[in-house]
Amino acid sequence: MVIELISSAKCFEGEQRVYQHSSRTLNCDMTFGVFLPAAALEDKTPCPVLFFLSGLTCTHENFIQKSGFQQYAAKHGLIVVNPDTSPRGVDLPGQDAAYDFGSGAGFYVDAKQEPWSKHYKMYSYVTEELVELVNANLPVAAGRRGIFGHSMGGHGALICALKNPGLYKSVSAFAPIANPSEGAWGKKALTGYIGDNTADWDQWDATRLVSQYESTPQELFIDQGLADNFLTAKQLLPENLLAAADTNEHIQTIYKQREGYDHGYFYISTFVGEHIAYHANLLKASKV
Amino acid sequence: MVIELISSAKCFEGEQRVYQHSSRTLNCDMTFGVFLPAAALEDKTPCPVLFFLSGLTCTHENFIQKSGFQQYAAKHGLIVVNPDTSPRGVDLPGQDAAYDFGSGAGFYVDAKQEPWSKHYKMYSYVTEELVELVNANLPVAAGRRGIFGHSMGGHGALICALKNPGLYKSVSAFAPIANPSEGAWGKKALTGYIGDNTADWDQWDATRLVSQYESTPQELFIDQGLADNFLTAKQLLPENLLAAADTNEHIQTIYKQREGYDHGYFYISTFVGEHIAYHANLLKASKV
Repeated sequence: MVIELISSAKCFEGEQRVYQHSSRTLNCDMTFGVFLPAAALEDKTPCPVLFFLSGLTCTHENFIQKSGFQQYAAKHGLIVVNPDTSPRGVDLPGQDAAYDFGSGAGFYVDAKQEPWSKHYKMYSYVTEELVELVNANLPVAAGRRGIFGHSMGGHGALICALKNPGLYKSVSAFAPIANPSEGAWGKKALTGYIGDNTADWDQWDATRLVSQYESTPQELFIDQGLADNFLTAKQLLPENLLAAADTNEHIQTIYKQREGYDHGYFYISTFVGEHIAYHANLLKASKV
Repeated sequence: MVIELISSAKCFEGEQRVYQHSSRTLNCDMTFGVFLPAAALEDKTPCPVLFFLSGLTCTHENFIQKSGFQQYAAKHGLIVVNPDTSPRGVDLPGQDAAYDFGSGAGFYVDAKQEPWSKHYKMYSYVTEELVELVNANLPVAAGRRGIFGHSMGGHGALICALKNPGLYKSVSAFAPIANPSEGAWGKKALTGYIGDNTADWDQWDATRLVSQYESTPQELFIDQGLADNFLTAKQLLPENLLAAADTNEHIQTIYKQREGYDHGYFYISTFVGEHIAYHANLLKASKV
């Protein structure tokens, strides 16, 4: 559980840090971002922790540099942790052949297919190893843990929460790939990482997980820009997840549609403050 | 005065745009960013315009993507225009040999030395051609014009204002190269672009311009992180500019020192809201 500090810069009275560590789950070195608000720095006050999962092609850097989230995390006193999107420094045939599979496109699943299964276990990395690392190394308030993400990372946030009731007290997603079994990106990733048997895809698909969900009531905050080309292209399919939630009393949804906003970071930066306020409210109120 | 729209994305109810045009001053194609607040879009309400000049190695993209300025420009109803830092698409010997001279390092001067003088006239570009372009193509409120910048761009903002009393109603700078004649970056740039005669450097040095300034009273807002390595390395020398201002009744300074902040974009993002509020206040109150 050793993590090495790579960089640190003061930001909104807190610190934006980058850490590196050797991942036992992924069998490679991984890098992740951590924002610590002033309270967590000064007297190590335990703070709620919010995980952010990024989209296709991203590393840990995009969200740190482009979203402007730090001011809201500082305001609400949240620690924010954002991992990379795929194993790094590995050398698998074809890993760099496309932007939507392999490097930068781990899809937050545990791969079953060779050669990916040796490294591509981003689901277990995010829900187990990263949680343990954070608990062991940062002043996090026990149990006050939320998760959100964008696009492929919105999918990741949804499945990590739906597969682990109670692990995250708050869940939101910007333009998530909400039903990957039915969209081109998702089909390619699930075929490549999980295999041709589409029944095996169910446990990695937020819409199907919502249909099956029978545990502690869970609220999901879904955010969607209406000028998002990938919405039109049926890659995201939030309507399918919303329909599945409508027939499951254990799932509540908040769906916010943003007129004129696209899929990019200017969209995220506009609404990340609203998401962080949403998480802060739930995390501070939650029974742990 | 033709400008071509390259990209546009909705952001904080306004739009972040990127334009390209053929520059008569620089003899090459140039790219610049424009943020338009909602009022400027909806009914073309004339809005004050604030120019931002970036630092060494930057293009127009860094400030757009990393500073998070858009929310504050939206809140205060300002148009923000940010040009590139040097001529692009030209082919001069040695232009890419170093990060602090040539490409990405135009230093906002008008070069006198060959081969730079054919293209490297960023001072005239920013203070004349870009102002004309903006006036001709965007709904700007006549005369309500401010300028700010970072590092090399802080130097640029200061000299553009000091050399043109009244052109900009508000001026601020993050960690400016305040006395380039006395720092390593500045000496290299001024030697290369202007020549060996150091007397010729005076008109491109904010500290020397402050000493000579005899026109309309001008306030300068200087911002400086105290954990900035380049402050320690005597590249920035704000103390020299402040000392010069102390002996000139025509120049007022506001100097804010930020404990623990470095030279990077996390520092800028923390304080850019305060700068934009400062500019908005002066630009809205100014007699034009």
